[in-house]
Amino acid sequence: MAVLPEPVQNLINAFERLPGIGPKSASRLAFYLLRSQDDISQKLAEALLALKSSTSFCSVCYNITLSSRNVCEICSDSGRDASSICVVEEPLDVLVLERTGGFQGLYHVLHGVLSPIEGIGPADLKIAALMERIKDGKVREVIVATNPSMEGDATALYLRQQILPLGIRVTRLARGLPVGSDLEYADQNTLLRALAGRQELI
Amino acid sequence: MAVLPEPVQNLINAFERLPGIGPKSASRLAFYLLRSQDDISQKLAEALLALKSSTSFCSVCYNITLSSRNVCEICSDSGRDASSICVVEEPLDVLVLERTGGFQGLYHVLHGVLSPIEGIGPADLKIAALMERIKDGKVREVIVATNPSMEGDATALYLRQQILPLGIRVTRLARGLPVGSDLEYADQNTLLRALAGRQELI
Repeated sequence: MAVLPEPVQNLINAFERLPGIGPKSASRLAFYLLRSQDDISQKLAEALLALKSSTSFCSVCYNITLSSRNVCEICSDSGRDASSICVVEEPLDVLVLERTGGFQGLYHVLHGVLSPIEGIGPADLKIAALMERIKDGKVREVIVATNPSMEGDATALYLRQQILPLGIRVTRLARGLPVGSDLEYADQNTLLRALAGRQELI
Repeated sequence: MAVLPEPVQNLINAFERLPGIGPKSASRLAFYLLRSQDDISQKLAEALLALKSSTSFCSVCYNITLSSRNVCEICSDSGRDASSICVVEEPLDVLVLERTGGFQGLYHVLHGVLSPIEGIGPADLKIAALMERIKDGKVREVIVATNPSMEGDATALYLRQQILPLGIRVTRLARGLPVGSDLEYADQNTLLRALAGRQELI
């Protein structure tokens, strides 16, 4: 005998398919929605349905944008520095970098990283589009902001190989101790990187 | 300038209203759905819309059931022991207890607990319905399975006061050390309860 009515079980199953939500959180969310006002689940449902139909990728940088736009807000903003392009793995990374307010250039979203194990090669990423973008000579620096992981590093090295011959500077985000962290909790690799990348105190 | 297209921001806002989902998890979920197949967000949206329209409360025990049913599956199951009623705070608690397979009686969902601070009194809970249910003399035991919190205990005491005069046994779930736990990590109150409730080794 099923203990849960089917609609509740369906919702729990749908929540469980999301990353970071296990069976317990999924039940909790479903029962929370059951006893909350109608508009919470209504608004979530509407936002979900609108998500894919009203968004698309920018034709220049492949970031998420409204489907009514061909080019995203960042790419079409003439106030930004077009001589520097920051390459990231996912659209979420653009958001994170924008929140810092520390970068005034443009972005390029690869939509993944090179991963021989998962069979993801250069052709599966937006690398050809990046090469096309930078070959006109206006770009002077490409900042590779892929994650500081094995795959992120491999992707950065690959990009460097491709881009350096064009006479464009290729840089990578600094590795080191996170601000506010504690030396004794830092892992060995991070400490080694922090040592190797030490800078003059001026 | 908004960095995120409105549909994405709407979805992030909708996720953030759910319990246990903060701004970072909400962004992560939205961007996960953006790059996943359409049917994941589609199914979640459908399940959300169906939730309230196709569920209602059982007219006997106030557990969640299909809106096509008046009485839930547990209450209408003649194989269950109608002489014992387990009183819980929320419908989710019924699910959790059913999963143990250790209770064959019926349930009664209060939909909350007594809380003078939040202004929740007996009339705000399904207590009158419970008293109505048990006054015919068929019920021999009421197991109060409200949470082992201040409010859960207060509600249990109130129910005991109301029910004992009817000559019905009122019990409460045992408090003590959780199975598989470590004595040294137990809090003082739990240890005191475990000591007070110690049982003969037989």
